[in-house]
Amino acid sequence: MAATSPDLMSTIVSLCKRRGFIFQSSEIYGGLNSCWDYGPLGVELKRNVKEAWWRAMVTNRRDIVGIDASILMHPKVWEASGHRAGFSDPLVDCKQCKMRFRADHLDNIEKCPSCGGALTEIRKFNLMFKTFMGPVEDDSATVFMRPETAQGIFVNFLNVQQASRLKPPFGIAQIGKSFRNEITPGNFTYRTREFEQMEMEFFVPPADDRYWYDFWKETRRSWYIEYGIRPENLRLREHAPQELAHYAKGCADIEYLFPFGWSELEGIANRTDFDLKRHSEASGKSLAYFDNDSNRHYFPFVIEPAAGADRAALAFLTDAYDVDKEDNQRVILRLHPALAPIKVAVLPLVKKDGMPEKAENIYRDLLDHSITSFYDQTSAIGRRYARQDEAGTPFCVTVDTQTLQDDTVTIRDRDSREQYRVAATQIVGAITEKLSGKRQ
Amino acid sequence: MAATSPDLMSTIVSLCKRRGFIFQSSEIYGGLNSCWDYGPLGVELKRNVKEAWWRAMVTNRRDIVGIDASILMHPKVWEASGHRAGFSDPLVDCKQCKMRFRADHLDNIEKCPSCGGALTEIRKFNLMFKTFMGPVEDDSATVFMRPETAQGIFVNFLNVQQASRLKPPFGIAQIGKSFRNEITPGNFTYRTREFEQMEMEFFVPPADDRYWYDFWKETRRSWYIEYGIRPENLRLREHAPQELAHYAKGCADIEYLFPFGWSELEGIANRTDFDLKRHSEASGKSLAYFDNDSNRHYFPFVIEPAAGADRAALAFLTDAYDVDKEDNQRVILRLHPALAPIKVAVLPLVKKDGMPEKAENIYRDLLDHSITSFYDQTSAIGRRYARQDEAGTPFCVTVDTQTLQDDTVTIRDRDSREQYRVAATQIVGAITEKLSGKRQ
Repeated sequence: MAATSPDLMSTIVSLCKRRGFIFQSSEIYGGLNSCWDYGPLGVELKRNVKEAWWRAMVTNRRDIVGIDASILMHPKVWEASGHRAGFSDPLVDCKQCKMRFRADHLDNIEKCPSCGGALTEIRKFNLMFKTFMGPVEDDSATVFMRPETAQGIFVNFLNVQQASRLKPPFGIAQIGKSFRNEITPGNFTYRTREFEQMEMEFFVPPADDRYWYDFWKETRRSWYIEYGIRPENLRLREHAPQELAHYAKGCADIEYLFPFGWSELEGIANRTDFDLKRHSEASGKSLAYFDNDSNRHYFPFVIEPAAGADRAALAFLTDAYDVDKEDNQRVILRLHPALAPIKVAVLPLVKKDGMPEKAENIYRDLLDHSITSFYDQTSAIGRRYARQDEAGTPFCVTVDTQTLQDDTVTIRDRDSREQYRVAATQIVGAITEKLSGKRQ
Repeated sequence: MAATSPDLMSTIVSLCKRRGFIFQSSEIYGGLNSCWDYGPLGVELKRNVKEAWWRAMVTNRRDIVGIDASILMHPKVWEASGHRAGFSDPLVDCKQCKMRFRADHLDNIEKCPSCGGALTEIRKFNLMFKTFMGPVEDDSATVFMRPETAQGIFVNFLNVQQASRLKPPFGIAQIGKSFRNEITPGNFTYRTREFEQMEMEFFVPPADDRYWYDFWKETRRSWYIEYGIRPENLRLREHAPQELAHYAKGCADIEYLFPFGWSELEGIANRTDFDLKRHSEASGKSLAYFDNDSNRHYFPFVIEPAAGADRAALAFLTDAYDVDKEDNQRVILRLHPALAPIKVAVLPLVKKDGMPEKAENIYRDLLDHSITSFYDQTSAIGRRYARQDEAGTPFCVTVDTQTLQDDTVTIRDRDSREQYRVAATQIVGAITEKLSGKRQ
């Protein structure tokens, strides 16, 4: 167990607010417990994390397609999945010392085991948020905000398979919000009641489940490293048999060494054929796959890599955090260029002599080539470099006096601090090459 | 008023299911009223619509930044915004004929004005979905699922302005889910209880509000045309004074001629300084902007272009729908290439003679250049072209016998039906040029 770093965590929370990565939700009203808003830099970081996942899991794979199911689903979905029954705890509170207990963990539900005070009535506590659809607030109108995106994939299994004409092994991927009424949220954006998932259900012939379970464990672990997480801060933890959900044949967590300790980033589970069978029974509509080759129906097994987009973003941010000890403890976010909110900052050295116009043209040209850029002509150049280092921008392009003479600019590399000149006409090519080079 | 086309609507709904654009949510359980799931083609279309909006509204503009606020916000936000009080109707039902009435519209709340039957008690009906945060289901734990993304922008106004160092005129943009407990949802994905918004709040000096109101009306109208909506199917409808919300100084709808008639795609409103002032009063934290030049605080006016991502996707899909009357009524989706789920389909003419391997290489090369592609080697080539036309794919690349001799391939254009040969080494360049050419 590594030592935790509460100081590092609060430094990152403070950086996130100051630079506009993450704000407390409804902050002017005192905040809403465990809800967070992504600011201008944070929204771009998270968009890039999701895009990198989608590219690796959907766009670049012939065997996986995406969907986007609604957050509100039919209540029977959660009965079949087991969330109605299994996601619910009975709670009691001590009226005297205010401690809270699970009623099913107490021998005596009259008196507080801590102080002997009287306990409240048992209150049901299901981790699903419930709401009412339609004008009447009663049981018949109760619907739930999904606690996981996975069920949206299972109930659409045959529709997707038939429309896409895919055969196992194939996968269905989804990115979207889920909601869990956690009793103990915390650790910044790590454990929140509203969160965004990146889940993929990979449907395989039952005999091939071990191969694909191992394949996805390694493939997903590599993804985090490809995008910049240091391997020593990542580990794969196989669950012990007693940790497994009753329907799971295997499960492993990809854990990251957060400042608050090793914590799960993503789980890879062998869910067997549990979900497809349960929904077939509950709905009366078989979700079995018909295999032309063997001329029979069967229920595929499911290997599920389920990641958290907020957790991934927080891990990439934390791992990228660095301080230049030789230069006033300046912060440098060494984000992978594909994840960096801004790829290139274009900076005229001074606000005169035609430098802003030249810089503006370069900025527009970068945008025209789909390179997300930022234009800044305020304050001293050193201060502007420092601001870009702190925002994680991998490259700065500076227009200076020499530019006006020979049409060359300086490109500054965030990590090496190297500066070198290239012809203004070559900037897009040079940056494109650097971005794709860093991506390897 | 144009004639409506119920047949066209049901044809589109049917196409959406068959090809995997849109499925009914929880279909195997009989569906959930007004909720829809995007399938493999639909999720890509909607992603492209949102990406086109983000690019136009955030990435390509120096004066606008993005945020991503949480769906669950502090309940005081909705008191200050007026949604707690103003978004609520009292309803009664007739126990006999089951008709429903707004109680405040009845002279007599005892007897049904239609059949004379007895009425139920008055039930409160607020369009906001409510839920309970924390383990206790009572009023103190009640929170709401946001009915609009705009308020997440207003409460973050000063945090964003300060972190981004922006001065009015500047904007804050957001894409995200909102929820309204509509009494009468309908028209496929047009009016749903769960929907995705693309909203931007543009903060301007009060004296400049008219200029920016006109600017955004025209800019947003042009956006739909740029991405393929025929101008004759689009109109701008200025609201009459009596239609305006009490705080609004002006409002205009961009309407599209859907098969069910002219309907709103997007609203552009001059919300004045209402929201920033209301949240300042309610929170006790001033959201006034400090202007260095005049050395005084003021509340900017807000011009808001608020679009629906689902409505935009449905409009683009509807407008792209075409039928080839001379060829078996084949469906062709003439989607703008930037919105098309697949940009290029790579098709080996036959499944032998090395054609699949060659096609696979071309497919991988396109993916490496971030061109979303699809590989298909099943069935006759004509049938595969037809399937791609129906999916809206603008280009097909075919590997045939001649490819094996001179390393050229056929590129087929969806709209012109032209086919011409290019060297295999030139495919990426040719497609890139076509995609950017069509984008102009």
